[in-house]
Amino acid sequence: MLKEIQGGICAAKGFTANGVHCGIRKNKTKRDLALIYTKTPATAAAVYTQNLVKGAPLTVTKNNIANGKAHAVICNSGNANTCNANGIEIAEKTCSLLAQALSIDPTDVVVASTGVIGQPLDITPIANGIPALVKGLGIHSDYACEGIMTTDTKPKEIAFEFSVGGKPCHIGGIAKGSGMIHPNMATMLVFVTTDCAISAKMLQKALSEDVKHSFNMVSVDGDTSTNDMVSVLANGEAGNEEIVCEGEEYTAFCEALAAVTQYLCRKIAGDGEGATKLLECKVRGAKDETTAKTVAKSVICSSLFKAAMFGADANWGRVLCAIGYAGADVDVNKVDVAFRSVKGTLEVCQNGAGIPFSEEKAKEILSESEIEVLITLGNGDGKAVAWGCDLTYDYVKINGDYRT
Amino acid sequence: MLKEIQGGICAAKGFTANGVHCGIRKNKTKRDLALIYTKTPATAAAVYTQNLVKGAPLTVTKNNIANGKAHAVICNSGNANTCNANGIEIAEKTCSLLAQALSIDPTDVVVASTGVIGQPLDITPIANGIPALVKGLGIHSDYACEGIMTTDTKPKEIAFEFSVGGKPCHIGGIAKGSGMIHPNMATMLVFVTTDCAISAKMLQKALSEDVKHSFNMVSVDGDTSTNDMVSVLANGEAGNEEIVCEGEEYTAFCEALAAVTQYLCRKIAGDGEGATKLLECKVRGAKDETTAKTVAKSVICSSLFKAAMFGADANWGRVLCAIGYAGADVDVNKVDVAFRSVKGTLEVCQNGAGIPFSEEKAKEILSESEIEVLITLGNGDGKAVAWGCDLTYDYVKINGDYRT
Repeated sequence: MLKEIQGGICAAKGFTANGVHCGIRKNKTKRDLALIYTKTPATAAAVYTQNLVKGAPLTVTKNNIANGKAHAVICNSGNANTCNANGIEIAEKTCSLLAQALSIDPTDVVVASTGVIGQPLDITPIANGIPALVKGLGIHSDYACEGIMTTDTKPKEIAFEFSVGGKPCHIGGIAKGSGMIHPNMATMLVFVTTDCAISAKMLQKALSEDVKHSFNMVSVDGDTSTNDMVSVLANGEAGNEEIVCEGEEYTAFCEALAAVTQYLCRKIAGDGEGATKLLECKVRGAKDETTAKTVAKSVICSSLFKAAMFGADANWGRVLCAIGYAGADVDVNKVDVAFRSVKGTLEVCQNGAGIPFSEEKAKEILSESEIEVLITLGNGDGKAVAWGCDLTYDYVKINGDYRT
Repeated sequence: MLKEIQGGICAAKGFTANGVHCGIRKNKTKRDLALIYTKTPATAAAVYTQNLVKGAPLTVTKNNIANGKAHAVICNSGNANTCNANGIEIAEKTCSLLAQALSIDPTDVVVASTGVIGQPLDITPIANGIPALVKGLGIHSDYACEGIMTTDTKPKEIAFEFSVGGKPCHIGGIAKGSGMIHPNMATMLVFVTTDCAISAKMLQKALSEDVKHSFNMVSVDGDTSTNDMVSVLANGEAGNEEIVCEGEEYTAFCEALAAVTQYLCRKIAGDGEGATKLLECKVRGAKDETTAKTVAKSVICSSLFKAAMFGADANWGRVLCAIGYAGADVDVNKVDVAFRSVKGTLEVCQNGAGIPFSEEKAKEILSESEIEVLITLGNGDGKAVAWGCDLTYDYVKINGDYRT
């Protein structure tokens, strides 16, 4: 049984966090450096962007947690430390400065950066910020959460309590992600902490499986960032018997992890750059799961469909069009489409052809802030869900001049 | 030698055209039905959308020109006649009504429709419009061009004179295409006419090869339409010896065809929905041509890059990012990027890392209406060009409520 609780990434025993303004960003009221620390060393797992252009921090993190261990996470916003000649050096220096301040091993640090690409990252503000960052460590999930935000308009954090072998465990996460978000990679920065005892191998397995159904099914704009990762630290302080293989305990952990990641997916999609609406595309009746995923992603990624949703326009032809070019094995003459929100459900297409519907009812349903697009393919049992958002004037505005 | 001439699709001998307002669109000042007619029956070739959801007119056209022959082209705008229960019937009825009026065989008609998907197309306005459409046939490429436009803001027509075996030949084209335009299919409606004598087989070969470098390299919004096609009619009235195999004459024809199609590509991209800028991405130094194409398309399709160009923001990190997720074999540490317009050239990235540049100069270059993005991969001889446009507020506006 899962129970939502307070505390974000500090809900799990033994984890503290903090966030400060160190000066990477000009805006002094915005925290730009975040820290997560676990007293007890944790097992660690991560997934990374599949972009060939990878941020220097990812390379350093990958090396650092190759042994499945981590002690702290440090992340700056305002600069991605990517496509810089000295990126690796800066990321490693960040780790060593933090390690010194915390008296831990520099290779036990997960380091991440997010922000603009291709501008040298100065180590000075980070070096100056670390003492206050470490000194202020406490139950401050919200400060860390703010520290990793870029164009996000809302903080994204969540925590749950669950039970493994009779022991109460806790898991929590924070996320940032708004633009440059697309399936097929760890599509944003997400840090998850848990006090559940789980081996590094099983933790990586759980995470790698989870992202297939969570973060890899979110798209804001079809762009895939150079810097994104999802990492999980598990410090075992809950005192359960360590999970080392599949079974009931592993399943309980996976469910708790999925609760965190899927909550964050919805928050990330709904807070997509410029978004006014969360779009959730639910496909069923596909030949298989892969087909369902392909179709769901194609619809959620269509600029035309996204713009129609912004205008609360029930232009279901664009849904059909996106299904048609998805590159999936679909019989378009069997496709049913409906729109749903808290205002009700509206069938708009049956067997690939339009059916009469009330435009007034359509406007009412599509004017809500969370819209479901229900697609039935009539071809099997495969199903999938993908999350996205509408395409708005503000998306263009935000991205027309991001650097200044 | 190619010479640009006047006349559009009526530049080739024996071709006449017309366009009328028949009433599919409410706006009475907009022609919505177009006709192209050749006195002498023509050889015909076409390529079609690869979307699984195909407009009914495409199915009918494909059958009609299976024998490599056509006599006329009819196309309406305002309704795509797609995802309708009686689409085939309406498309066939359109052919038979036109054939009757022109005293030709209904199976010698190329029929096309463009506009909103999933709304029944009434035959009445078409039936009522055909007499005036046929009666007014003349040197009216411009009328036909207007008749096929949807959200296009500018007509797109061109013609060239060229020589085959010493005989002067003529080739011209009209196009419509503004949104829902993406590589990997015949991505818009394009009608090309020529008086050059060429066999149906060689005509199809020339067209199929041509689109790989022309229309399949254009993207406005990543969406691929259900209705688009490119068709060419060649009536042989120039009197050259029919081209039936490869050789000097075939090459001359291909060059003339490419001049028409590449002109129309630039016009279509530059007139993309809401566009203020034509973007031309030129990739060289790729491992092979396929790699170059993949990279060029990825950059031209990136929403983030497109929005940056709208804002005249030299955010080259987004170019690198799009190269990185293109799924191509590229060494990102060898990539050079520059921006170019009539105001000059600006190098912004060398060997995958940023180099200092004047933001003032960047703004000046990127404020022009035609921008080239020059990418050098340092990995071979492969090269490619792709065309696109910026992402603007108006794209969102146009597509937020297209149906009303």
